[in-house]
Amino acid sequence: MAGKEGLKMDERLKKQLEFILELDKEKNIFRQTHLSGNGRRENDAEHAWHLGVMAYILKEYSNAEVDIGRVMIMCLIHDVVEIDAGDTYAYDEEGLKTQKMREEAAAERIFGILPEDQREDLRAIFEEFEAWETPESRFAHAMDNFQPLLLNDSNNGGDWKEHDVCLSQVMKRQNKTALGSQQIFEVTEELLEKNIREGNLRK
Amino acid sequence: MAGKEGLKMDERLKKQLEFILELDKEKNIFRQTHLSGNGRRENDAEHAWHLGVMAYILKEYSNAEVDIGRVMIMCLIHDVVEIDAGDTYAYDEEGLKTQKMREEAAAERIFGILPEDQREDLRAIFEEFEAWETPESRFAHAMDNFQPLLLNDSNNGGDWKEHDVCLSQVMKRQNKTALGSQQIFEVTEELLEKNIREGNLRK
Repeated sequence: MAGKEGLKMDERLKKQLEFILELDKEKNIFRQTHLSGNGRRENDAEHAWHLGVMAYILKEYSNAEVDIGRVMIMCLIHDVVEIDAGDTYAYDEEGLKTQKMREEAAAERIFGILPEDQREDLRAIFEEFEAWETPESRFAHAMDNFQPLLLNDSNNGGDWKEHDVCLSQVMKRQNKTALGSQQIFEVTEELLEKNIREGNLRK
Repeated sequence: MAGKEGLKMDERLKKQLEFILELDKEKNIFRQTHLSGNGRRENDAEHAWHLGVMAYILKEYSNAEVDIGRVMIMCLIHDVVEIDAGDTYAYDEEGLKTQKMREEAAAERIFGILPEDQREDLRAIFEEFEAWETPESRFAHAMDNFQPLLLNDSNNGGDWKEHDVCLSQVMKRQNKTALGSQQIFEVTEELLEKNIREGNLRK
């Protein structure tokens, strides 16, 4: 019998382990982005991992000084809600209308598995991310925007072609990267221009 | 044409982006552990992500106080070397003999992509992990031992059955968890006893 029933560990630890096992489901939530080398679609867990390491490597480009530990945990948990709410593609206009509501309910249930102090801590980190106000959340978002762009660039724009998106749609999302990192935003612009020149993204 | 050739960004940033893209390959390195729900095999990137969040959630159980930011980045990069060296199963006696040498060469090449200061920083973090000496590395290892145990427990010991491992083999690895967290080690013992009672692991 799987599960922690009948074990001696206390309630607090049981809740923590239940949450940790729940997280495992994030490995089955697939995004629209494909791995480099024209690989399979990427899942949320490995995407979040990639952001965490990227944040550490690129932290010198944050516009404002950041607590890198907080950026990392923010990156690691920012998509936990998609276990219930699913991945909403950045250019899915219909999905975007209900995204907030679906993700709010998911945060309530999933972080709700944790002991109260940790539930509040993780919800606060998630809400900080969503609010785009602190340097940490703006830099985490810059990573969240830049990572799929890097993969897509490495695949000659395959994801843009598949969804027939154009530059103005991409820029609507990528513009906000400048809030977190002016320098990463400039690289973003450069990569987009290159992909337009090469016919991977339409104007 | 994918790649950063001909772009204006400086050498430092090019190296950082090359490293970040190289990391993507870790999503294709598969472990022996299966996801909960008797799912597919887990890859190194999502495993590392799981450890990072677990470390944050379970940090109160570390034997010694830890810098959780350092534990997280350690968890996130501890398996980067497997991009070249492959995953060595914990109970593969032949593979274990050459693991150190293979991983050393991989660390040299992969961290070598980075600018010198970051190459040294990441190698130091990796070597600290390997040395099992600091509280951070011991706690990261406790997570690295405990995570596959939790998944395997949730799957009624499927991975132990598949490889026909017995308790003494599992304990040889799991005993060291106590160096990082006495409390997580006690839960480990309890889970192993339960799995023996239920016939999922042989004595």
